[in-house]
Amino acid sequence: MTSATGSTPPVRVAMLGCGTVGTQVERLIREQSADLTARVGAPVELTGIAVRRPHRHREVPEELLTTDAEALVASDVDVVVEVIGGIEPARSLLLAALRAGKSVVTANKALLAEHGPELYEAADESGADLYFEASVAGAIPLLRPLRESLAGDRVNRVMGIVNGTTNYVLSAMDSTGAAYGETLEEAGRLGYAEADPTADVDGFDAAAKAAILASLAFHTRVPAEAVHREGISRVTAADITAARGMGRVVKLLAICDRVVDEDGGESVSVRVHPAMIPRGHPLATVGGAFNAVFVEAEAAGQLMFYGQGAGGPQTASAVLGDLVAVARNRVAGGRSPRESAYAELPVRPMGQVATRYHISLDVADRTGVLAQVAAVFAENDVSIATVTQRGHRDEASLVIATHLASEDALRGTVEKIAALSAVREVVSVMRVEGEEP
Amino acid sequence: MTSATGSTPPVRVAMLGCGTVGTQVERLIREQSADLTARVGAPVELTGIAVRRPHRHREVPEELLTTDAEALVASDVDVVVEVIGGIEPARSLLLAALRAGKSVVTANKALLAEHGPELYEAADESGADLYFEASVAGAIPLLRPLRESLAGDRVNRVMGIVNGTTNYVLSAMDSTGAAYGETLEEAGRLGYAEADPTADVDGFDAAAKAAILASLAFHTRVPAEAVHREGISRVTAADITAARGMGRVVKLLAICDRVVDEDGGESVSVRVHPAMIPRGHPLATVGGAFNAVFVEAEAAGQLMFYGQGAGGPQTASAVLGDLVAVARNRVAGGRSPRESAYAELPVRPMGQVATRYHISLDVADRTGVLAQVAAVFAENDVSIATVTQRGHRDEASLVIATHLASEDALRGTVEKIAALSAVREVVSVMRVEGEEP
Repeated sequence: MTSATGSTPPVRVAMLGCGTVGTQVERLIREQSADLTARVGAPVELTGIAVRRPHRHREVPEELLTTDAEALVASDVDVVVEVIGGIEPARSLLLAALRAGKSVVTANKALLAEHGPELYEAADESGADLYFEASVAGAIPLLRPLRESLAGDRVNRVMGIVNGTTNYVLSAMDSTGAAYGETLEEAGRLGYAEADPTADVDGFDAAAKAAILASLAFHTRVPAEAVHREGISRVTAADITAARGMGRVVKLLAICDRVVDEDGGESVSVRVHPAMIPRGHPLATVGGAFNAVFVEAEAAGQLMFYGQGAGGPQTASAVLGDLVAVARNRVAGGRSPRESAYAELPVRPMGQVATRYHISLDVADRTGVLAQVAAVFAENDVSIATVTQRGHRDEASLVIATHLASEDALRGTVEKIAALSAVREVVSVMRVEGEEP
Repeated sequence: MTSATGSTPPVRVAMLGCGTVGTQVERLIREQSADLTARVGAPVELTGIAVRRPHRHREVPEELLTTDAEALVASDVDVVVEVIGGIEPARSLLLAALRAGKSVVTANKALLAEHGPELYEAADESGADLYFEASVAGAIPLLRPLRESLAGDRVNRVMGIVNGTTNYVLSAMDSTGAAYGETLEEAGRLGYAEADPTADVDGFDAAAKAAILASLAFHTRVPAEAVHREGISRVTAADITAARGMGRVVKLLAICDRVVDEDGGESVSVRVHPAMIPRGHPLATVGGAFNAVFVEAEAAGQLMFYGQGAGGPQTASAVLGDLVAVARNRVAGGRSPRESAYAELPVRPMGQVATRYHISLDVADRTGVLAQVAAVFAENDVSIATVTQRGHRDEASLVIATHLASEDALRGTVEKIAALSAVREVVSVMRVEGEEP
């Protein structure tokens, strides 16, 4: 193989953006040049890097830098690697590249989640490749297994921790008992949260990833806006304490479910929200920068993928893996799997999605309160699994775990319970995941 | 996409063998026919199954069965799926298929480990595909991530539990305190061990898998016979007890390491042997039928893959994933990655591989024994990390943990220590893995 590569023309690569990830991509292409040549069957040549302010990028060779991204994409390159992030100008640049038959490797989850079909179509028309492993869970090979390894199986569930910032904040709240606001501030000081943490703490980042995972897992287009999204900003120290009291921990989960109705009709439920999981659950011990994702498939059973979900070198590893695949296809022929959206399953409205709940209430310590509360649950058709009643002096608490209940029914129940005169405060309402029914 | 498939001719598939895995492959192809058609872009048609005794296979359609495997391979098929296992006739049949340009999907680890290069060459010459995800760790997508996702990274270590039988036996010994022999018998009665368990307990199965993993991870041909192999038959109840006393558990590990010499020279070490790992290590809790494999790569960092390593449906899921890839390539063009063995790293002899050891000795309870023992370690250049001395009445024990020591030096040390008059018995000598140095 090595002997043939001397004469094979190089695969020419343009890179858009040069931040934490791009810097590492440039380094890896340079340092692993001989390996890449052997693995691809031709040299991989980085011909240019488009950035806004070239003087800020002293860590990469100056002669590669350009401010004209459009011209770089239009130049004589085979592959465009995009690590700018955000929707524009990334979208226009990648569409231009794909339409010109240039293959694309991107780490851009927001773009994929919002404009995936448009990109796939452009790739399809020109026969170019579109790879995006780095867009979800950093270095963890997750999309390729879903797109390819499990292509002969039927995936029923994908559930995981896919955002490092929120995982850091929730872990810290769990270990210190501190409130959300001060923990987030501390996370910012330590570099675990961005200056503007909205995309992370409000769940936008995780929701984009959930949309991509669900689309691949269920062969169905799931746009980011179809993902039910709750962030962690309303998680209180009381929630965390309540979870601990039950031997649980609070995590922000991305959950993609295939739902089969009684009449056999199928739909998908895709959601991002905080949930309590048992401390013995494998996801409970996933800390800080690590991500972990469970996949349940009919034949394969339960699989877990674990690794670093963010970071320059880690994300660059995923980009390079895709780059090798794209470059190999250029040299040896072949194509990335096309969009597979044939199943066209409807996305179930969150109100109709059934999960189990934990509810903790501060109530007046008098007889009959439990009966009152239980009656409201019964009226709203929410079945109680366990109740724990604790009282001292005139204060008392009720901790209730429900069986599977729809979001709509649960919300209705909680509203009415909050209005009961005997209920002083609804301390915590949170979904419970990861337990056997 | 669906509209175009009506006119696309089917991808014709022959299957060799129809045991636990084959039965499930046939079922999945039949039951998921519509899904496979949509995912591949053409129908996937199983045209025949070669078996030795057709009357024993009532669970698959009778008209598919044939006893003439050679004729089936030579017939008008695009893909040959092999789930017979063993070297012959699998090797000859698959070589015939590949030479005729037919793509191959196989679950045969022994064949891959012993004759991988020959199969790759045949595939290369005719341009056929060769996929074998099911050969290692059942349903866990592991080979595709190594071959493709990490193709732009530098893998330094692969370490995991890849054999279910030995994992079951060691776990049972740990929880019951029973001896090896009776635990293995019990495992046989419960269906966790084969009638002839040699391939499992002597580590042949794990060694074949280690050879495949190392070949992919290090871009180097590593034949099965180059893998240092120790099974679990010499693991004693005393070893297990000694491990427990140190907060450890004994597991049969497959370990593939990239070794860099002081002068920068690289080699690989590939070995299968029992080792003590800390009970807090993620691999320590992997039980029964589950497999788990850690991969450490330079940029990606630490990754873990977890799932069911054996079983009919699980292994069939991996076969089907490969079948979809192969069939897609037939329809849309493209090829599996070819053999990547350009690195040609030498395999380091086990005698020169450095690991840490745990040694436990029964010694006479008199002064000076530790000094004698320590002197032998020093003479042989094996550095002691910790010694624990326990004594009651005239019995005493020494538990020694070493720093990194070569196998050769350690073996020499243990021989000389066993010959000391003050040493009554060398109770346990075992490698220690999974701890920070």
